[in-house]
Amino acid sequence: MEEQKKILCVGLVCLDIINVVDKYPEEDTDSRCLSQRWQRGGNASNSCTVLSLLGASSAFMGSLAAGPVANFILEDFQKFLIDVSLVSEHAQCVLPASVVISNVCTGSRTILHMNRNLPDVTAENFSDVDLRQFKWVHLEGRNAEEQVKMVQQVEVHNASVPPQQRVTVSVEIEKAREPLYQLFPHGDVVFVSKDVARHFGFLTAEAALRGFYPRVKQGAVLICAWAEKGADALGPDGLIVHSDAFPPESLVDTLGAGDTFNAAVIYTLSKGGSLQEALTFGCRVAGWKCGFHGYDSIGEMFSK
Amino acid sequence: MEEQKKILCVGLVCLDIINVVDKYPEEDTDSRCLSQRWQRGGNASNSCTVLSLLGASSAFMGSLAAGPVANFILEDFQKFLIDVSLVSEHAQCVLPASVVISNVCTGSRTILHMNRNLPDVTAENFSDVDLRQFKWVHLEGRNAEEQVKMVQQVEVHNASVPPQQRVTVSVEIEKAREPLYQLFPHGDVVFVSKDVARHFGFLTAEAALRGFYPRVKQGAVLICAWAEKGADALGPDGLIVHSDAFPPESLVDTLGAGDTFNAAVIYTLSKGGSLQEALTFGCRVAGWKCGFHGYDSIGEMFSK
Repeated sequence: MEEQKKILCVGLVCLDIINVVDKYPEEDTDSRCLSQRWQRGGNASNSCTVLSLLGASSAFMGSLAAGPVANFILEDFQKFLIDVSLVSEHAQCVLPASVVISNVCTGSRTILHMNRNLPDVTAENFSDVDLRQFKWVHLEGRNAEEQVKMVQQVEVHNASVPPQQRVTVSVEIEKAREPLYQLFPHGDVVFVSKDVARHFGFLTAEAALRGFYPRVKQGAVLICAWAEKGADALGPDGLIVHSDAFPPESLVDTLGAGDTFNAAVIYTLSKGGSLQEALTFGCRVAGWKCGFHGYDSIGEMFSK
Repeated sequence: MEEQKKILCVGLVCLDIINVVDKYPEEDTDSRCLSQRWQRGGNASNSCTVLSLLGASSAFMGSLAAGPVANFILEDFQKFLIDVSLVSEHAQCVLPASVVISNVCTGSRTILHMNRNLPDVTAENFSDVDLRQFKWVHLEGRNAEEQVKMVQQVEVHNASVPPQQRVTVSVEIEKAREPLYQLFPHGDVVFVSKDVARHFGFLTAEAALRGFYPRVKQGAVLICAWAEKGADALGPDGLIVHSDAFPPESLVDTLGAGDTFNAAVIYTLSKGGSLQEALTFGCRVAGWKCGFHGYDSIGEMFSK
């Protein structure tokens, strides 16, 4: 019964239009891509994909504009058996595309983001969620003030149920934006990015963990991945846990590698695995993913 | 009766994803657009839009992939009352998007094209067209060998009907590609671009017209637009006709200006206007268009 409970990821879904080139285009020229692909993107949305490929039941909560791309996005969610019953459609908004220029010669990725006019999920939206369906809620840090209230709703729920039915909360602090830092004390598991760590002047994952740990709540686990250096984690016992990276033979596509790492860590912890197991599996799946375009290869390699 | 006959444009339709920036993105950075819009593109498709806005009945013939964007494209055709009954859908293909990075500070446009796996319209497809519905067929030069055969089909049709029911043929030679030059002797009206003219070493529109005129068929009109220098035309009387450009107060969007010029020229000639009237109207509408994003403003200014 507990096993059938789902993992809910709350955050962004968008369309990534990925243009593969062998030379970064100069301004004011016409050039031709080697290939182009459309991919459902967004951190929370990507993590759902990976959770599903690993064999976990996942659900996505976020907003979607009606329009030409919404069907593509919804079909793609369904292809990965991701529950979209908590997706809200906004007819008057436009779902923007992020344009990615991926240079196969240098490995560089240039991303043109778009300001979205889509509203984020609010605490009021979240109050409609039947938390009994879920064993884990993961929040991609965005509208942090509202997200703090969502975590408080989970805490109220957890206080009303037996311990084994409690919902675990994880939060991701990926962007170096001041308002997001209020999420530090609000997760059982907190993912903080290398970007944020460097923004604070930390030069290693371990230094970042030691520096940020006073901000998390008592008993929480703080995790920091550091690209080719692997990832570290720090829990209430004060011991740093580390996994090396598992780089692929050839680096093909790093887009969504962080979301893959988060999903694989959540997957392991939600199954009762240790922090060391979670970290190692996160690095292993994320590294594997970087050897392929997209995510499908994860299912072939890792699904149980 | 004759008035209700349509203008058929054969060629490309694609999706342009236009990203407006105030600084061209450096390689391997993340940046944010000022705005993004999706626009139906492709030369023949754009010319249909302008013909409709000017008040002519137009039809588009080309291929379209099934998928998320096809509905957007078809709805946009319908919004402009463009007949799409000759559009063929190809379920197994992907409609690619051209990514345009439009820099508002420099006016530059950087275009990333995509190799399409969509088949062009063939002479066999074209043989199914009931030419009695049309007074004009405009071919965007692409698969020229097939297009020469289409023109021959129109000639066969024209030989079987009274002169006033004959279909006029125009061709556009826009890209400097050798196979396209076989189209020169196959239109009653031939549009040749500044790009092609410069590729042949011509420094002015007049020089290009004099140089290319021996290639067109007897009695044909050859037209060459030259951006801010306006446009020139040469007919069988050997006299160069010229119109100055009509630049907008502020240059906002030049994407599709050439397609607008072609449409306005075809519109005027198809109504029985003179070459001078057609050229002047072409320059006027195209210049006006460059002062606005997209095409809608043409309808407000010029529709009869």
